[in-house]
Amino acid sequence: MASALKLHGSPISTATMRVLAGLHEKGLEFEFSPVDMSIGAHKLQPYLSLNPFGLVPALEDGSLKLFESRAITTHLAHSYADKGNQLILPGKERAALLVWQEVEAHQFEPIAVKLLWELFYKPMFGLEADPSVVKENEDKLAKVLDVYEARLGQSKYLAGEQYTLADMHHLPAVSLLSGTQVKKLFDTRPCVAAWAAVILARPAWAKVQALRNAPQQ
Amino acid sequence: MASALKLHGSPISTATMRVLAGLHEKGLEFEFSPVDMSIGAHKLQPYLSLNPFGLVPALEDGSLKLFESRAITTHLAHSYADKGNQLILPGKERAALLVWQEVEAHQFEPIAVKLLWELFYKPMFGLEADPSVVKENEDKLAKVLDVYEARLGQSKYLAGEQYTLADMHHLPAVSLLSGTQVKKLFDTRPCVAAWAAVILARPAWAKVQALRNAPQQ
Repeated sequence: MASALKLHGSPISTATMRVLAGLHEKGLEFEFSPVDMSIGAHKLQPYLSLNPFGLVPALEDGSLKLFESRAITTHLAHSYADKGNQLILPGKERAALLVWQEVEAHQFEPIAVKLLWELFYKPMFGLEADPSVVKENEDKLAKVLDVYEARLGQSKYLAGEQYTLADMHHLPAVSLLSGTQVKKLFDTRPCVAAWAAVILARPAWAKVQALRNAPQQ
Repeated sequence: MASALKLHGSPISTATMRVLAGLHEKGLEFEFSPVDMSIGAHKLQPYLSLNPFGLVPALEDGSLKLFESRAITTHLAHSYADKGNQLILPGKERAALLVWQEVEAHQFEPIAVKLLWELFYKPMFGLEADPSVVKENEDKLAKVLDVYEARLGQSKYLAGEQYTLADMHHLPAVSLLSGTQVKKLFDTRPCVAAWAAVILARPAWAKVQALRNAPQQ
């Protein structure tokens, strides 16, 4: 019998990794359907019927079709609340979760994406990083991480004392940037460094890494 | 007695307008506390204690402090579910709401922000728009709106047959861009044009417009 959950994506896409982390945190069985971005399969049918914007990933959950990685993880966290690890917070604590999910999406991610392009994806494709773009975005990320340092001095995780979607959504970028010179921006902030170490050590994240490091078919 | 809800922001900030729309949709009484961005009050204390990133708006809801406009509107929609107009969807319909909220944030907004800067804010500050940036982003927005046109040919609103946060979050940019040459991109797509007309006609949005057009103290 086909799995009710089918994830379409690429193991080198940060958005796909974000959803994989969510599936593993919830302990859900799923089928992984690789989308060959090297031949532009994400910009062609049949993939466009899953995500009309031609971006990975997309999830089929029974008859439901979802795209946008954070929509998918939020869906999984709510629809499978009784499975695996809780990734959301109830009642008044929900406000902090909402705030820090948006911080990741609007303050952290746009800068992280630029640094990842320069320092991770460009070298992968044999291109040279632009030092001025790197410098500009390292300076911006440092300011964002100063706010994180203050926040993480008050609570173990971004939304409070529990690991949530707000932390998990950072994992792909934190993981890949930790393999570049940007690591120093995490390491020089003790609370950020401790938080990064804790979230990178999640068993669910180890499973995502294993898929990324596996030989692709 | 002071209102339990206090919004700190600026009537010319799109993020502030987004939250104002939410407050009016929910029919909530609130106090509006203007933040004088012209003197950089958002980058100084006491405002930084409300939002450490120094961006408007921020909301005080009793003892809760929130920032990031979409976190605030989502908080209002859930915490005041029994007040005013419903802006969220239950059960299986929630998946579509999550997807289209993320589409607004990640596919529509980054392009809309660049066009607003060139065509709305630059003229306001006596600066000239850069035609090449305008052209590049009009082309990008056209492609995004082609996907919206297909979607809005299937349902009245982005997430289904009910007006939700996913539509409301677009209002500030759709409203301001409708006063620029970008209006043609909406007008040439019948379903998008009909949707824009319907959301711009919300009584709650008229109240936001009234505040924006009022003489500032």
